[in-house]
Amino acid sequence: MCGLEWLPMLTTRLTARLGIRHPILSAPMAFAAGGALAAAVTHAGGLGLIGGGYGDAEWLGREFAAAGNARIGCGFITWSLAKNPSLLTQALSHAPAAIMLSFGDPRPHAHEIRAAGSALICQIQTLAHARDAIEAGADLIVAQGTEAGGHGADRAVLTLVPEVADCLARFAPDTLLVAAGGIADGRGLAAALALGADGVLMGSRFWAASEALTHPNHQKAALSTNGDGTVRQRATDIARGYDWPPAFTARVLNNRFVQDWEHRPDEHRAMAESLRADYQARVAAGDPDAVGVWVGEATGLIHDVIPAAAIIERTVAEAEAVIARLGSLRIAG
Amino acid sequence: MCGLEWLPMLTTRLTARLGIRHPILSAPMAFAAGGALAAAVTHAGGLGLIGGGYGDAEWLGREFAAAGNARIGCGFITWSLAKNPSLLTQALSHAPAAIMLSFGDPRPHAHEIRAAGSALICQIQTLAHARDAIEAGADLIVAQGTEAGGHGADRAVLTLVPEVADCLARFAPDTLLVAAGGIADGRGLAAALALGADGVLMGSRFWAASEALTHPNHQKAALSTNGDGTVRQRATDIARGYDWPPAFTARVLNNRFVQDWEHRPDEHRAMAESLRADYQARVAAGDPDAVGVWVGEATGLIHDVIPAAAIIERTVAEAEAVIARLGSLRIAG
Repeated sequence: MCGLEWLPMLTTRLTARLGIRHPILSAPMAFAAGGALAAAVTHAGGLGLIGGGYGDAEWLGREFAAAGNARIGCGFITWSLAKNPSLLTQALSHAPAAIMLSFGDPRPHAHEIRAAGSALICQIQTLAHARDAIEAGADLIVAQGTEAGGHGADRAVLTLVPEVADCLARFAPDTLLVAAGGIADGRGLAAALALGADGVLMGSRFWAASEALTHPNHQKAALSTNGDGTVRQRATDIARGYDWPPAFTARVLNNRFVQDWEHRPDEHRAMAESLRADYQARVAAGDPDAVGVWVGEATGLIHDVIPAAAIIERTVAEAEAVIARLGSLRIAG
Repeated sequence: MCGLEWLPMLTTRLTARLGIRHPILSAPMAFAAGGALAAAVTHAGGLGLIGGGYGDAEWLGREFAAAGNARIGCGFITWSLAKNPSLLTQALSHAPAAIMLSFGDPRPHAHEIRAAGSALICQIQTLAHARDAIEAGADLIVAQGTEAGGHGADRAVLTLVPEVADCLARFAPDTLLVAAGGIADGRGLAAALALGADGVLMGSRFWAASEALTHPNHQKAALSTNGDGTVRQRATDIARGYDWPPAFTARVLNNRFVQDWEHRPDEHRAMAESLRADYQARVAAGDPDAVGVWVGEATGLIHDVIPAAAIIERTVAEAEAVIARLGSLRIAG
């Protein structure tokens, strides 16, 4: 139009509702999704979310500042936020476009979020969670499959998304649906839209973006691992001393650390406190064999560390091409 | 055309290669996929496969006969077939369109299958298996995700299919790719095609077809269960005395039987032989609480027991509509 370069676009209910160009959100990954990544995603036409994680007011303030005036959102681990709800108030003071809650009951926080004018995004892992999110009045539900890196549960995107879509069509037709877990390219985006999602939330792909706070050694380890090389496990939570609800496990690379500890959780628990400083030192040093490396099954689809804008542009262009190809398969018999 | 009713069609490399109308195969489910189901799938334009299962020459002969002159395939559990390879020779005597091997090394059987003029279909659960299938000279690779009912492994369709597609594009571009696990409607078919598959293999959806050998009580139990209600477990193999390789678990309804036994495998193993006749009696009686009910995560997308032809017609029409909807999302910016 008017001499501008042709740019592919996919418009969905999600782009309209959030006022974004592309139906792509970045996951609020604890320790990896800071302000620079979130801002880059937003500037490229998606919606970036910073990872509120386990709650650190100083980190949160710094990363909101790093995002500058970009319109971003912020995500929290709900069971952890419940222990320190002032972090939500702090986040809302930055007037985020959205707050995303995952891994716990969103209902106690819903009113504060909506009253502040932020969209309420609830990430769910089961159909039962979806019902809680509807009850909380979620504007968006992120249906996260077991493919995802980091914490999650057992259901897969391929069945969870259409089943939640059917549930929303019946009980909450104005609530939008976003697919998460295992989506790292345009094929995944097109598949998610086919399953009934209005868009996608990508974690691992942005974890391997240039702007992520991920250690480069971890990105490098993930790039050389195929999708057979990740596993859901609990050793990383034991090592860090986080008391996760038993319904959730964390997907990481199936590395030496996991193989050393995952099969002996009782022994690990007994020793973890004395090993903690050492674990954190290895995290800081970026050792990819001796700590959790937080990438999902999509690791086998990720072959480069590139800026978030390039990820979004490539993903949308690929999805466009996939949709055009699918259209060519249709013939009247 | 010529006054015929308009019928939706999706033509892919799979329809061309197998000479079928729709890119849909039915899974060769042990004990559920007999000749009547396979023939119905073939007559409706897909390719039906009977389930050779654990090897019973009499059953195999009866079900090939039940398929009449329909052009069907047959599937085997590879590690079980290796104990009784004469079953493969028996199956090949019926000149099946294809033989599908899953759960074991296909290479020892590949020559006999191809020499007999049947297509070799290898079902795989990991990228590593895909390499073995390429080495075996597979004509088709079925990439089976963890969503699937019955035996399988841990990787999900959303990442496994595109990763295998990339592998085939590079190393075996003439080998076709079929997605399996969690696909029960046109959304799943469209998503699988988006991910790079040439077609789909559906199990659970056909397990709940009128023509399946599934006990009606089991179908009824599955219809009233959503996708949160299945689980991967080993108790069913212990109960039946099957010595499955540890890499494979079986997805079934998470019913009383599973909850009673799955957490105490050693005790179960010690008692299983004395309980076996009782277990088999409960299978025959169709008790859906006290034995394995072999349906996958797609159970939440299955709401009726209908003929295979209606399943295929509906799935293709839905996929057509999904693809048309996706096309409408594309706009030039």
